[in-house]
Amino acid sequence: MKLSVAEIAQRIGAEVVGDGQVEITGLGSLGSANVGQLSHLSNSNYRNQLADTNASAVILSAADAEQCPVCALVVDNPYLGFARASQLFADPGSLAPGIHPSAIVGQGCEIDAAAAIGPGVVIGDSTQVAAGARIFAHSVLGDRCSLGKDVTVRANVTVYNDVSIGPRSVLHSGCVIGADGFGFAPDSAGHLVEIAQLGGVEIGADVSVGACTSIDCGAIENTVIEDGVKIDNQVQIGHNCRVGAHSLLCGCVGLAGSSVIGKHCVLAGGAGVGGDKPVTLCDGVIVTACTTITQSVSKPGVYSGSIVFHEHGKWRRNALRFLALDELFKRVKAIEARSERDK
Amino acid sequence: MKLSVAEIAQRIGAEVVGDGQVEITGLGSLGSANVGQLSHLSNSNYRNQLADTNASAVILSAADAEQCPVCALVVDNPYLGFARASQLFADPGSLAPGIHPSAIVGQGCEIDAAAAIGPGVVIGDSTQVAAGARIFAHSVLGDRCSLGKDVTVRANVTVYNDVSIGPRSVLHSGCVIGADGFGFAPDSAGHLVEIAQLGGVEIGADVSVGACTSIDCGAIENTVIEDGVKIDNQVQIGHNCRVGAHSLLCGCVGLAGSSVIGKHCVLAGGAGVGGDKPVTLCDGVIVTACTTITQSVSKPGVYSGSIVFHEHGKWRRNALRFLALDELFKRVKAIEARSERDK
Amino acid sequence: MKLSVAEIAQRIGAEVVGDGQVEITGLGSLGSANVGQLSHLSNSNYRNQLADTNASAVILSAADAEQCPVCALVVDNPYLGFARASQLFADPGSLAPGIHPSAIVGQGCEIDAAAAIGPGVVIGDSTQVAAGARIFAHSVLGDRCSLGKDVTVRANVTVYNDVSIGPRSVLHSGCVIGADGFGFAPDSAGHLVEIAQLGGVEIGADVSVGACTSIDCGAIENTVIEDGVKIDNQVQIGHNCRVGAHSLLCGCVGLAGSSVIGKHCVLAGGAGVGGDKPVTLCDGVIVTACTTITQSVSKPGVYSGSIVFHEHGKWRRNALRFLALDELFKRVKAIEARSERDK
Repeated sequence: MKLSVAEIAQRIGAEVVGDGQVEITGLGSLGSANVGQLSHLSNSNYRNQLADTNASAVILSAADAEQCPVCALVVDNPYLGFARASQLFADPGSLAPGIHPSAIVGQGCEIDAAAAIGPGVVIGDSTQVAAGARIFAHSVLGDRCSLGKDVTVRANVTVYNDVSIGPRSVLHSGCVIGADGFGFAPDSAGHLVEIAQLGGVEIGADVSVGACTSIDCGAIENTVIEDGVKIDNQVQIGHNCRVGAHSLLCGCVGLAGSSVIGKHCVLAGGAGVGGDKPVTLCDGVIVTACTTITQSVSKPGVYSGSIVFHEHGKWRRNALRFLALDELFKRVKAIEARSERDK
Repeated sequence: MKLSVAEIAQRIGAEVVGDGQVEITGLGSLGSANVGQLSHLSNSNYRNQLADTNASAVILSAADAEQCPVCALVVDNPYLGFARASQLFADPGSLAPGIHPSAIVGQGCEIDAAAAIGPGVVIGDSTQVAAGARIFAHSVLGDRCSLGKDVTVRANVTVYNDVSIGPRSVLHSGCVIGADGFGFAPDSAGHLVEIAQLGGVEIGADVSVGACTSIDCGAIENTVIEDGVKIDNQVQIGHNCRVGAHSLLCGCVGLAGSSVIGKHCVLAGGAGVGGDKPVTLCDGVIVTACTTITQSVSKPGVYSGSIVFHEHGKWRRNALRFLALDELFKRVKAIEARSERDK
Repeated sequence: MKLSVAEIAQRIGAEVVGDGQVEITGLGSLGSANVGQLSHLSNSNYRNQLADTNASAVILSAADAEQCPVCALVVDNPYLGFARASQLFADPGSLAPGIHPSAIVGQGCEIDAAAAIGPGVVIGDSTQVAAGARIFAHSVLGDRCSLGKDVTVRANVTVYNDVSIGPRSVLHSGCVIGADGFGFAPDSAGHLVEIAQLGGVEIGADVSVGACTSIDCGAIENTVIEDGVKIDNQVQIGHNCRVGAHSLLCGCVGLAGSSVIGKHCVLAGGAGVGGDKPVTLCDGVIVTACTTITQSVSKPGVYSGSIVFHEHGKWRRNALRFLALDELFKRVKAIEARSERDK
């Protein structure tokens, strides 16, 4: 992979300050990049590394261009510019268009000639795969699914029946889309009778689903992931959830069934959503790591609910006191009352 | 799929009030069902939607039958009735009996002629698969396993050696049953020497195991999941755990090795069980979401231990105070002592 | 499997007290072992079971040898001795050397003749597999990977491109190594533009990776797991993390991107690491279950940060008080000030 600075600038909409013919073969961080690599200055904490960088070119903002000792690619938002440039160097993985002879495709499917179906892939009946879609080895798709243009399904993914996936979305290995939602009705003996899960899953365009993540099908209606949602690894999304467009769900997040997440929300790692009643978060809610959201939130903002860690002994003394917190409030109230009376 | 109300009533044990010849083609919720759909009124919160429902029939209790504007299926427990009715409309997934030519079956196996072994399935030696069992594409079973009647193993499941699965149980895609338990003995240099995990896994009848869930084999004796246990996605069950009959483990629950869960317990999403010594929960324990159970519980009831989330700034002020909670108790005690002395 | 006590003693470096010709066919715990089984006394809590054991031999320390009613294998560290003995009885799983005819191997690979490539395995281009390595059914490896001697990859594992795995390491089923790290730059509309993840993963020697665990590739440089690290099931390791040698990551642990864990650390089940800035733990840090580490730790020791669970009603009264904790501190301070003034 080799691109000139001028080519990169044209692709990411940057202005070149310096020699546009410099050749770039990869990316590096400002402090550790070598000759031939492109770097970026997106965070002022790293500005002091600019003068000594060995990178051959740097993406930065106009304010930093003058101090750049090498070729500069000037953009308004260097981090965004770097994201776009990074995609030029990505290895898309090799998978030739066509259906691999070891793949098994069911009846009534429409597989575009420009789609790539890898070795051992198994596809059920009446499923559609659009041009540019790529399904890697041993992934299994159910019946009546639909994969939009340029969808990528990495190896060992499982998609159940009635799942639609919008253009350019990516499913990473080990993820499972459309498994049965978790719903049971206890009978008089306390045995749990399954409520059959008859809905599907709708995944929008430009969605990313991480490795080992599971998104259940809906009970009656569909589970919905809107456009541009990015979901990390080890995330659990229960039946009939709806995740709003351009929201970000970090690793190990869990959404109980019927949770509704607004648009442009961020759930940090390990956050959980679910309560006695289904929880709805409005647009623009940010939940910090390992916080459990048990009630609906109607005001955008940052929400938290975890314990600050500490050296074990000190933690223990405080944690045990937690169990007497209510009593302490009452004791303080009694002191205040006495003090008031004694005035 | 098309069933008359009379047929459904007969299958779920309901009494029909109205025209039993009405045809049902699917399910819908009371507020959104269309003509041809069957709904249910199980929760009095939805009673006000009954008069205007477009459903063609509704499962409900005798007390609500009179207000029902359409055909009624009267049962004692409408939610349970709906669960049973839903199963009549489930798509079991298509997999023809017999062994797919691309499947690989080891030596000494007994595969019933009425079992279905899907494409690419790999089965080790001396494994038994009973009638009606279905193993979907690319699932891999080890040696000396036993699958009971009508067991369903969805695609891309992995079962290690010495795992027995009772009748009608379901393993969802991406789950891993019988991987090595996590046990190590440090040597004098602090290197971790593996304790070989020689036990198996016993799964009872009517168990459900969710997508991407892992259940480890036992170290010496078996890990045991009793009859009727329902396990959601992303659950981790360590070696030598025992989960009692008809308990419910919701998404992202984690059980440390040798945990014992009683019968009819409910562990809500993200709950964790494990402490310095193995933890035992008696029958009928309910653990709320994201609670960590670090000690055994011998009394049925509801247990909790998480922090109530809040707007970040307010949370932060309180959370930092947590680190001085013990000191606060001492300050209050001092005030009380002084007050006592000054009397 | 049958070994004499003398053979076992020789393999684990034990001294035999009693008849070395006794034959051992398996392992058992002191209280439940049967004739023909080998047990161990590693924990003084079980010393009272020694006199009545039915085991045919017991691994124990010199101090306990005299009380042993059966053949004794005397070692300095009985738990370590038992770990080593257990490995003699492990079933390594059957997989014949050579490339299974259903496997697909890319171009430019070097597969040692003494490696075993199982049914349906798919390997990309330019990947190397050393002698003794075993890859079980349906695992998928990418391009430019390298598997050291005696590496075990269980069934249904996915390894992306540019992953190296040191000798004797084990990857359990369902794990995913090298999927894209989770990095996005928002554009002016709040749409999330992916930062292509161009790094790989380096896994050292004697590493164990649990079932359904995910380890992401680095953004530019590699994610690194050093020698001897043991990782349990359902663990998430973000891009560019480094986990120091001989550390132990228990089930459901999550590490945010760029976290650095020192050597000989222990992260108990459900622990999370990640904050506003990347978190670094020094060597020898122990984190208790379900604790979230949000800042770097530079002093070895035990750290905690969870809530002690309690009966729901009592928990609720205290948990709600948490939201007024800061106010309580202020009230107590006011009382103290008044008391000081009134002296």
